[in-house]
Amino acid sequence: MAAMSQTPFIAQATAARTAARELATLPRGRKDAALHAMADALASAAGDVLAANAVDVETARAEGTSQAMIDRLCLDTPRVDGMVQGLRDLAGLADPVGDVVRGFTTAAGVRISQVRVPFGVVGIIYEARPNVTADAAGICLKSGNAALLRGSSSAVNSNRAVVKALRSGLEEQGLNPDAVCLVEGDRTVTQEMMTARGLVDVLIPRGGAGLINAVVTGASVPVIETGTGNCHLFVDRSADQEMALQIMLNAKTQRPSVCNALETLLVHREIAEDFVPKAMAALGEAGVTVHGDESIQGLDGRIVPATPTEFDAEYLSLDLAARVVEGLEEALEHIRTHTSGHSETIITNDLVTANRFTAEVDAAAVLVNASSRFVDGGEFGFGAEIGISTQKLHARGPMGLLEMTSTKYVVVGVGQIRG
Amino acid sequence: MAAMSQTPFIAQATAARTAARELATLPRGRKDAALHAMADALASAAGDVLAANAVDVETARAEGTSQAMIDRLCLDTPRVDGMVQGLRDLAGLADPVGDVVRGFTTAAGVRISQVRVPFGVVGIIYEARPNVTADAAGICLKSGNAALLRGSSSAVNSNRAVVKALRSGLEEQGLNPDAVCLVEGDRTVTQEMMTARGLVDVLIPRGGAGLINAVVTGASVPVIETGTGNCHLFVDRSADQEMALQIMLNAKTQRPSVCNALETLLVHREIAEDFVPKAMAALGEAGVTVHGDESIQGLDGRIVPATPTEFDAEYLSLDLAARVVEGLEEALEHIRTHTSGHSETIITNDLVTANRFTAEVDAAAVLVNASSRFVDGGEFGFGAEIGISTQKLHARGPMGLLEMTSTKYVVVGVGQIRG
Repeated sequence: MAAMSQTPFIAQATAARTAARELATLPRGRKDAALHAMADALASAAGDVLAANAVDVETARAEGTSQAMIDRLCLDTPRVDGMVQGLRDLAGLADPVGDVVRGFTTAAGVRISQVRVPFGVVGIIYEARPNVTADAAGICLKSGNAALLRGSSSAVNSNRAVVKALRSGLEEQGLNPDAVCLVEGDRTVTQEMMTARGLVDVLIPRGGAGLINAVVTGASVPVIETGTGNCHLFVDRSADQEMALQIMLNAKTQRPSVCNALETLLVHREIAEDFVPKAMAALGEAGVTVHGDESIQGLDGRIVPATPTEFDAEYLSLDLAARVVEGLEEALEHIRTHTSGHSETIITNDLVTANRFTAEVDAAAVLVNASSRFVDGGEFGFGAEIGISTQKLHARGPMGLLEMTSTKYVVVGVGQIRG
Repeated sequence: MAAMSQTPFIAQATAARTAARELATLPRGRKDAALHAMADALASAAGDVLAANAVDVETARAEGTSQAMIDRLCLDTPRVDGMVQGLRDLAGLADPVGDVVRGFTTAAGVRISQVRVPFGVVGIIYEARPNVTADAAGICLKSGNAALLRGSSSAVNSNRAVVKALRSGLEEQGLNPDAVCLVEGDRTVTQEMMTARGLVDVLIPRGGAGLINAVVTGASVPVIETGTGNCHLFVDRSADQEMALQIMLNAKTQRPSVCNALETLLVHREIAEDFVPKAMAALGEAGVTVHGDESIQGLDGRIVPATPTEFDAEYLSLDLAARVVEGLEEALEHIRTHTSGHSETIITNDLVTANRFTAEVDAAAVLVNASSRFVDGGEFGFGAEIGISTQKLHARGPMGLLEMTSTKYVVVGVGQIRG
């Protein structure tokens, strides 16, 4: 590792690295005890956390922040309880560290095990949701990683109060509190964090497309890109239309603001005249505005015109882009052109069509006859989720504890040399 | 994917993307037939390849290129035969695409399979070794990926001749020749390649530290860093000293120019007076110059002084840095400070010491009583190797066909929606 000038960030990251070394070989029992101690400390500090959060919320209001942003920033007792419970739940999950992924003996008789190990120091760069602070710290700790938490300045008082509690929980268990660090400062610090090769092992940005793009472009530290989701639903001619309606409504309206929500509806030409008016009735009742191109506008008077760029955007609202396609080929072509690689769904009863769709669509998750809202670490049974990766390196799809680890090869011989 | 202006590189990468779509679902039999056809075409074109290579070598000589570089650039009949055989060998390996990595059914009764898929388009940026052109193209093809091969300008005639043959083999099998593309042009093209998000899925640099650092720093496309290896050997007080001598000699001298060769020797204080003179005799006979710090200089007159920076560098030559350490703790501390995260070895007969070393050293491979020269895709039995990753994301250690793939989740329901 090249010598670096000692800035406050470098000092903090170096301290986190020392803590990471201790965490790497800590047995599960001690990590679980630490998670419970962190939960206890956070529960005890709930009053301080809420008071600190009130300061952040007041500042945000005074600065004219949007109500949606304030909703994300705001903590209340149920949200703090959720953070506390999240830490306790992590203690109940299996520890991936030490798992032997593969093992074999080579032609030279050397025994090789590929063993799961923590990354080391994980940097999380995220926006104004203080609950991410506790979630990310807990997931990192359970997977044996130290966490450098770079929250947004608008949540700094809340984040300080949460991190203070988490660190006191670590100390109470005799652990190095630098396993959880809040990274503060102006944009220069974010820049330092993104380029701290040798100090930060992995960066995970969590937030909107702007934040993620800035990190992916600016970082020389390896990044796991978590995703925007421009999710499509293709209703094939063979679809059970009642099933298609239910899944479409669920994927669009159950929680419109999340990345696995439906954004574009594609309808097979042969059933469009029948299906589209039924879909419009159901979507209209649910308060969804449908934006269609010329292929679909004539089929229902409630469809408003869509500009071509609408097929590339995430609405994250009760809006849905829609078009009619000639068949599977055109649906595949549309998805290929517009996908963000998150979750793509087909409703079909034709087995060959289903198999072609799952084989040919290039996305983290490809669904047949199920709602894209299932593409989620919790629904997958991972117990915890740090985000949903839309990149192809390392992890793709929901990322649980397993995806927060690397591996190393342990090679054991009895004196073998290479001939 | 954002619209990009159409440069020659963008046109080429877009063509490779189309080819990658075909490759992604190609059955193994057709890929293996293509590999044999590529091998046949390369064998038939051997004369053209050698003639083109002679032009490159002549130009390099005229430009005063170092002999070591010319050795790497130079092809002869055995090397071309090796490239041909390498392609045939790939046909004999298992196809990782389509493997089900994990499968489970969720609480909602949705069936989930995590299936191995190709990355798509893989960019390889490499230096003046034309044999990499065939190796990398073959590994990419077998793993279902299209290859954008960015060789060095000094090998451009050789690379053109090799790629021409490989593409004719693909065409002979009715496959899209854009599965193998040679990327030509000045440095602007490398820059385009490193930032072609959405067109290039993964970049793998192969070459010296300068090349790798330039790619890691300049790329916004995800990178797999292949490694420099500042590999250490710690001879514990409990070591079988004869075993230690044999492994030390093998790791240092069997092929000094490669990344898994030994670069630094650490000797336990308690055996140093006994072991160091024996080591010096053996190393001296093998033509190795030992560069020691003050801890070791007094133990043998043949040791030349080492500057502190020598403990951070890869010699890649018959030179070896050496020091005496007080014990395991100091050995761990030295390795932690100077490791490049490639391969680290202990020679010991003490089980607890061995287990602490393998648990605490943070590297792609940690070896006990075996030569670091075994850290190699061929020796691991992977059959083919695209490089040795020293990063922690995605792949760590030797990368075979498995490491050239991503996964996707295939999610199948019978109409489930999320409650």
